[in-house]
Amino acid sequence: MPMHVIPLEGLPMVQAGDDLAAFLLSTIKQSGLELVDGDILCLAQKIVSKAEGRQIRLDSVTASERAVELGKITDKDPRMVQLVLDESTVILRTRPGALIVRHKLGFVGANAGIDQSNVDHSAGESALLLPVDPDASAMRLRTAVRAATGKTCGVIITDSHNRPWRLGTIGSAIGSAGVRVLQDHRGGHDIFGRELKVTLINRADAIATMATLLMGETTERIPAALVRGLPPDDTNDTAQLINRPLEEDLFK
Amino acid sequence: MPMHVIPLEGLPMVQAGDDLAAFLLSTIKQSGLELVDGDILCLAQKIVSKAEGRQIRLDSVTASERAVELGKITDKDPRMVQLVLDESTVILRTRPGALIVRHKLGFVGANAGIDQSNVDHSAGESALLLPVDPDASAMRLRTAVRAATGKTCGVIITDSHNRPWRLGTIGSAIGSAGVRVLQDHRGGHDIFGRELKVTLINRADAIATMATLLMGETTERIPAALVRGLPPDDTNDTAQLINRPLEEDLFK
Repeated sequence: MPMHVIPLEGLPMVQAGDDLAAFLLSTIKQSGLELVDGDILCLAQKIVSKAEGRQIRLDSVTASERAVELGKITDKDPRMVQLVLDESTVILRTRPGALIVRHKLGFVGANAGIDQSNVDHSAGESALLLPVDPDASAMRLRTAVRAATGKTCGVIITDSHNRPWRLGTIGSAIGSAGVRVLQDHRGGHDIFGRELKVTLINRADAIATMATLLMGETTERIPAALVRGLPPDDTNDTAQLINRPLEEDLFK
Repeated sequence: MPMHVIPLEGLPMVQAGDDLAAFLLSTIKQSGLELVDGDILCLAQKIVSKAEGRQIRLDSVTASERAVELGKITDKDPRMVQLVLDESTVILRTRPGALIVRHKLGFVGANAGIDQSNVDHSAGESALLLPVDPDASAMRLRTAVRAATGKTCGVIITDSHNRPWRLGTIGSAIGSAGVRVLQDHRGGHDIFGRELKVTLINRADAIATMATLLMGETTERIPAALVRGLPPDDTNDTAQLINRPLEEDLFK
């Protein structure tokens, strides 16, 4: 069965306190689309963070001595570094331009996902943190969509990530509800009947990657997309499942 | 504009010497599809390797002392280890079950992409190497498709890769022709007019990820998919562009 990735065009600019589910449903309706069971709503982390009031003005941040020191090493505003420190549990790498950490949520990446692009700085230079609990955000949206439409949809909250050995960002799932995140083929058999040993497929990241590509292909004003055509999932999987425990890091 | 990912069902089993372009075109025709300019044909590495005769019988491989030693550390057949050594330039990590190397083609990953699943072992236990030059393979397919149909399509050769900190494989582009692989937004502006500093998007990997998800969702017998709906590219990009030089490894 083919899969379709449909940009949700015309979403209003999102601000703290906005009802994202209502925004999405009205945009879907205006696009002439109708949700069906199994549809997966993909939202850029940014609009979720904005709706949840995760924008911080830098003049409200006091940089610690450590943040000042790391700011010098990484060539970053010490207040931005302070926000990264506050959001992370382990600093993995520091060098000019790069501050790679393990986020409190378990993700490893640059700057704890904190970003200043596509953020309104008119009230003072600001930064946008990740949602406090993106899996819970996804679940709330899924519940709200079901309450409003009766349809059982998956929800994925996407972010763009760098990878150690491959240039260019791709989308990842940082929050997920109602989507089978990891599909385990271990114990199954290949087309010649041989046992499959290590085939664990990350579905949520693949779906996030598609949606993120389309969001980027069109315009930065399209922070949401609908993925249609995958079989509906009955699952309690969350994006937290994706985090490889640091002690199992194959590449360490 | 929506994107569509369409599985190419009914492709015959591929053997050394087969004409993949002819197989693909006949499968597309039988599916009632018609190629349009800008379509991107995504092929699992495995069928390309098979067509190119990259299947090796293990009884033809002599393990060196080093391969025997690494076989003990990694708990792998020393002949498989020998194949990995022959295909790679640097060994990055060794531990039970894991042999992470830099492939001659520049990719970093497990076992130099050498795999024994979905391979016919009836003539003796075998392994399948990556194509010698996947970018060239993609270009040949693109040229053959254009010659046969007059349509200008992209071609991506996909493989499944692990990542250091995220569980579950996702697809990557190891060969590409006619697809803008990296899209550089640096120097552009965000929705509030602020300059974008580090937005480099990996389109080829995102497309490969979608196609790979669909190939895995359906059945291991569907090793090809068509991605439709992205704007046609006029580019000489190759998948080689994706390899981050080891000295620029942000995470090292």
